[in-house]
Amino acid sequence: MGIDKFNMLGILERFPIMCREALGLNKGLTVSGEITSIVVTGMGGSSIAGGMLQLYLKESKLPIFISRGYTVPAFVDEYTLVFAISYSGNTEETLSAVQDAKNKKAKIIAITSGGELEHEVDKVIKIPAGYQPRVALPYLFFPMIGVLYNSGLIEVRNSDLNEMMEILKDKQYYSETAYKHAKKIKDKIPIIFSSEDLKAVGYRFKTQINENAKHPAWDTVIPEMNHNEINAFRFMPRSNFIAFMLRDEKDHPRVQKRFDITRKIIEDRIDIEEIMVKGNSLLARMFSTIHLCDMISYYLALENRVDPTPVEVIERFKERMK
Amino acid sequence: MGIDKFNMLGILERFPIMCREALGLNKGLTVSGEITSIVVTGMGGSSIAGGMLQLYLKESKLPIFISRGYTVPAFVDEYTLVFAISYSGNTEETLSAVQDAKNKKAKIIAITSGGELEHEVDKVIKIPAGYQPRVALPYLFFPMIGVLYNSGLIEVRNSDLNEMMEILKDKQYYSETAYKHAKKIKDKIPIIFSSEDLKAVGYRFKTQINENAKHPAWDTVIPEMNHNEINAFRFMPRSNFIAFMLRDEKDHPRVQKRFDITRKIIEDRIDIEEIMVKGNSLLARMFSTIHLCDMISYYLALENRVDPTPVEVIERFKERMK
Repeated sequence: MGIDKFNMLGILERFPIMCREALGLNKGLTVSGEITSIVVTGMGGSSIAGGMLQLYLKESKLPIFISRGYTVPAFVDEYTLVFAISYSGNTEETLSAVQDAKNKKAKIIAITSGGELEHEVDKVIKIPAGYQPRVALPYLFFPMIGVLYNSGLIEVRNSDLNEMMEILKDKQYYSETAYKHAKKIKDKIPIIFSSEDLKAVGYRFKTQINENAKHPAWDTVIPEMNHNEINAFRFMPRSNFIAFMLRDEKDHPRVQKRFDITRKIIEDRIDIEEIMVKGNSLLARMFSTIHLCDMISYYLALENRVDPTPVEVIERFKERMK
Repeated sequence: MGIDKFNMLGILERFPIMCREALGLNKGLTVSGEITSIVVTGMGGSSIAGGMLQLYLKESKLPIFISRGYTVPAFVDEYTLVFAISYSGNTEETLSAVQDAKNKKAKIIAITSGGELEHEVDKVIKIPAGYQPRVALPYLFFPMIGVLYNSGLIEVRNSDLNEMMEILKDKQYYSETAYKHAKKIKDKIPIIFSSEDLKAVGYRFKTQINENAKHPAWDTVIPEMNHNEINAFRFMPRSNFIAFMLRDEKDHPRVQKRFDITRKIIEDRIDIEEIMVKGNSLLARMFSTIHLCDMISYYLALENRVDPTPVEVIERFKERMK
């Protein structure tokens, strides 16, 4: 296993299996009564699941907010469903936000592998322990889908789940494509471009590069960056950066055109790699892209000669906060 | 005036006056009927006003969304107040989002200096023309406050407005402090740290550096970055980057502690500058920090020997989209 002492590769390759397992974790838990909004509170790897929920439910009539910090938004009340996600169950910000949500009489469901959080909330979905939060994403995301589905708040098409599982099967594709992209990133800082729709996937890619490869990365969104950041490429030293564009044929046609023009405008300043989003259903597109990007960050860690699993700086940080 | 052919300095120094003028621009316009959420739709410099509204109303019971793209969120309905902001009135994404909002029967108020938008919406707040959208921020922001205040949806303390005007008076402070900071940024890429509360201010600073100085910049948020990005500083070449921390004594005490620890952990990797947020009221803190950061981006443009006003790449982009 070399650098990868904790076998992150093995865990990443279990991703499709974790997705299937995760679908059963909520054990029929439901919410009742009127719900006018959903808030997902959590930090880092745990909060990514909130971004995925917001993306997955983009056609939903329920407004969904991601909240990252010590409180929940001021509008939270008894009609708000709050998903409190902390893989460890001991995230200080999330425990504080849960108190705030309780004071505001929200309907709270916790998703955690244990810790203090499980004792703070009545409705808890317990998920398998022993992982890094960021690789546990399926366990953090699918239980929310389960609750909303069981409560009659959303529909989930079996065909979408099947398509996702089918696309995730192709181990060789993910491994070869990821390795090829990781080689290109080495010694450069990636700037990840996505559409507004896939923003949460772009942000996930950025944070996986930060945590697994201990490597800088930034994410940016089209069309918004066409109105400001695109001016900044003239001062960007070519040798230091590389652009990664998440290209999705389901994006708005004008957004796709914007990707093409952005390419043309910046390509004399920066090398550009494209990642084609695979799949028809949103679920398949989200999770196949996430899995590929996770694998890229893994191979980048190996290129950087760092163990992808431990995040020593974060641990040191938490110690100092005590 | 040298490089600054369009006298951006003069316009930036009119910032306090523009704030005062902006307070009268909504001319008593109100909305009526039940409102359950607010959406601000707009792009780039125009959408910044939405971020400011979300920040200013963080204690409000009304959920506020920023929407940057061709559509408005799926939950928008007849109980949603949509502010459609396009300084030019011809922003393609915003015009498309307005059609979407109309189909969803939202209550729409447009804020624009003219263009197509003014003919698309019944309730229009007309603002002075002839500026770059990004310097017109007071004209884009305060009319929203006016509408919400006139409609009995929010309270505004005169003392806050007075404090803001008072703090903005000190021309020498902004000019000297900004010049000093701009000198430090030259030839480096700034990474702007803010609290979650001041995220919109950090993002504004980033985009002003992009647009005025044509210079790269990224923004990041504490506590979120303590859970991922903080791992990435080991590979960040010291000579290429500089950290700017927006420090606010009103931030949550644990967030302030996180700033201190973040400093300690990254300071052997990157130079760090601090910008102290001035003022007591949120309004004064927001706008004094914005004004200082605007001025920094202006002086950075001069350091870069570029005219701060024209954004030639954006104009070229729009041409190609036709």
